[in-house]
Amino acid sequence: MFPIRQIVNNVRRVAPGFRAMSSSGPLTAVEVDSEGIATVTMQRPPVNSLNLELLQELSNAFDYVEKNKCKGMVLASASPRVFSAGLDIWEMYEPDLKRAEVFITALQDMWLKLYGSSYVTAAAINGHAPAGGCILGLSCEYRVMVTGTYTIGLNESALGLTVPQWLIGTLVNTIPPRQAELALTNGTMFTVEEAVKVGLIDETASDKADSVDKCKKFIKKFDRIPPLARAITKQKIRQGPLAWMKENYQANAQDFLTNLQNKIIQQSLGDYIKMMKNKSKK
Amino acid sequence: MFPIRQIVNNVRRVAPGFRAMSSSGPLTAVEVDSEGIATVTMQRPPVNSLNLELLQELSNAFDYVEKNKCKGMVLASASPRVFSAGLDIWEMYEPDLKRAEVFITALQDMWLKLYGSSYVTAAAINGHAPAGGCILGLSCEYRVMVTGTYTIGLNESALGLTVPQWLIGTLVNTIPPRQAELALTNGTMFTVEEAVKVGLIDETASDKADSVDKCKKFIKKFDRIPPLARAITKQKIRQGPLAWMKENYQANAQDFLTNLQNKIIQQSLGDYIKMMKNKSKK
Amino acid sequence: MFPIRQIVNNVRRVAPGFRAMSSSGPLTAVEVDSEGIATVTMQRPPVNSLNLELLQELSNAFDYVEKNKCKGMVLASASPRVFSAGLDIWEMYEPDLKRAEVFITALQDMWLKLYGSSYVTAAAINGHAPAGGCILGLSCEYRVMVTGTYTIGLNESALGLTVPQWLIGTLVNTIPPRQAELALTNGTMFTVEEAVKVGLIDETASDKADSVDKCKKFIKKFDRIPPLARAITKQKIRQGPLAWMKENYQANAQDFLTNLQNKIIQQSLGDYIKMMKNKSKK
Repeated sequence: MFPIRQIVNNVRRVAPGFRAMSSSGPLTAVEVDSEGIATVTMQRPPVNSLNLELLQELSNAFDYVEKNKCKGMVLASASPRVFSAGLDIWEMYEPDLKRAEVFITALQDMWLKLYGSSYVTAAAINGHAPAGGCILGLSCEYRVMVTGTYTIGLNESALGLTVPQWLIGTLVNTIPPRQAELALTNGTMFTVEEAVKVGLIDETASDKADSVDKCKKFIKKFDRIPPLARAITKQKIRQGPLAWMKENYQANAQDFLTNLQNKIIQQSLGDYIKMMKNKSKK
Repeated sequence: MFPIRQIVNNVRRVAPGFRAMSSSGPLTAVEVDSEGIATVTMQRPPVNSLNLELLQELSNAFDYVEKNKCKGMVLASASPRVFSAGLDIWEMYEPDLKRAEVFITALQDMWLKLYGSSYVTAAAINGHAPAGGCILGLSCEYRVMVTGTYTIGLNESALGLTVPQWLIGTLVNTIPPRQAELALTNGTMFTVEEAVKVGLIDETASDKADSVDKCKKFIKKFDRIPPLARAITKQKIRQGPLAWMKENYQANAQDFLTNLQNKIIQQSLGDYIKMMKNKSKK
Repeated sequence: MFPIRQIVNNVRRVAPGFRAMSSSGPLTAVEVDSEGIATVTMQRPPVNSLNLELLQELSNAFDYVEKNKCKGMVLASASPRVFSAGLDIWEMYEPDLKRAEVFITALQDMWLKLYGSSYVTAAAINGHAPAGGCILGLSCEYRVMVTGTYTIGLNESALGLTVPQWLIGTLVNTIPPRQAELALTNGTMFTVEEAVKVGLIDETASDKADSVDKCKKFIKKFDRIPPLARAITKQKIRQGPLAWMKENYQANAQDFLTNLQNKIIQQSLGDYIKMMKNKSKK
């Protein structure tokens, strides 16, 4: 819950009688615990593919966490084996261009809020996190991954898609540029062990509950830090990709739309859909 | 001393009869050894807090080292357990704004000279180096820290202060951006061992004399390198933060002055002063 | 050879009857194997010093590989103990300024093609690789070095030369900026073991054939990646140094020419030539 709570620091204070869960929609659930840490859970079966509606609900959830001055946010998944499968391919394959424009705008807005948030962010990654799923994790400040046969990575190039500068910037703020080049050009999906080694994952957990606990532990490390100074410092460090996105907001959206109209890319997506259908038949 | 000396390299030559110590003020001592290596020692008891006068004396000392074409400079402390406690809080708490403006300008000038110096720089860190103390060390090209229960780090956020871009740039030229974000947002003070591991410290020493020796050994590694090519190469590598400071010289000073007039920041500084007073009573 | 071949990916297709070796000149040999991997071998005895003609032939070879949609290119040396000794000192010592201008332009063009190539690049480094030799290797996407008493590094500062921003950018895309500063200011030549440790070399090989095999193995890792998406992703990651060179194309050339007219630099080059002559007498 989150009742009549007063955060230690005098900068943020939550109005008494605040009720949790209020921002939850059908595709996300938001819970705030007694210490003011929100958990935003993606719940779009089966694999939290990021369609327009899920992106919009995530944006709303992040607004809610920001507005209510929660001290931190754990990003989690209700799916048992997948954190998020990334951008919903059906938003990209043979798209309606008007919807596609709303879609890319929603992605950009969601990302600006998450990557530049004032509150502390941590991802509890309890399963696979390819492409957009990895972006969600990378945009947080800390990543805990459940051990298992899961993989994480930016495999856009393997699908015939290119990776925009804001995403390259986000990645090289996390792992060395040399490793980023190898991973992005080869569409590498890392095992949990490999992800830890390369610096994509900060800590492993035995199961989902353990991963959420570890995320909350990370968030509480900042209890002694004045939140305003912390937030500004974080946003300054992340200024490169954030500023790029703001300056190239329209151009980045247009680039996405142009790519969606490229025959080679549409064919790559079509091939991928066929491959996934064949896989699921087995 | 430094008498009738002729540096191997033909680019720099020191006038015969040069006398050392001439740039020393009450708060710094400058000694130049027979090989042309200067040692600049901060001597403002008890903890080398960087007030306006110490910053100005450091600037003068760096000018002196540059003008006399010393091959290198070791930055050291006369305090037995503290390298420098960082910016003097009394320059920031309930400040006289006119003096505060001279103060921030002096800090910026001192840093431009140190970070962009032509001569080789190394810090002999014989004790604690929080905030501004860490900045002094980071701005050198090599850092040797005396083992012990000392700590080093940029803990500005813990005091409610934000970290400017030139300092973020200086840090990520030294440690990976991922580690920089964690350290800056959490105001991490590293133990000597942790500092070595993260790359903030290059080498440890058993005591102050050993740390100065190791700094001089580092400086002498460049004896075979033509100093002009070395200096230009160093300045090009460091161009990011140096150019940022030059382009944002006024804005950065103004930002500092605006922060000093922020009530929340003044309260954070006041709380910190109280905490330190209570500590010193025990 | 390379006959009637059709690369898996539908983006690139090679015309039937294509004949290899056609781009070879006296100073380079180009071979394309049955899988569409080109090997460009430098063959300017004794040490592949990069004079104007070798730079131009390399440029032509890279054009050929690009135009013929080879999937990748291995850069190799016909010299038994040297990959490349770097820029030919006789193009820089007491230069004809008109030729020097063509020379620096040829260097810039060659580098833009290599660093920003669409095809996968790997360097089979079977011997010493100082300065320009190291640049060739660094500009590839993968570096395999033959074990032995060879060294690799950017030792420009030791010769009294400065390192331009595009080269600094290329280096810090490969090794951490802290290591880059130390290496560039000190003109460090790394042993094979040190080069692996710092990240300058990705893998070692027992001999030249083994190094070429390992380069080809690296190139084949991208067989499943649509080449267009891969190429654009690579070029975006490398955009920093590439864009810098394009924006500063004239200024960088002029800077080089100005340096060549600097007496101190000419004297450094002269001293170096004397030293090499004395060495070869022994």
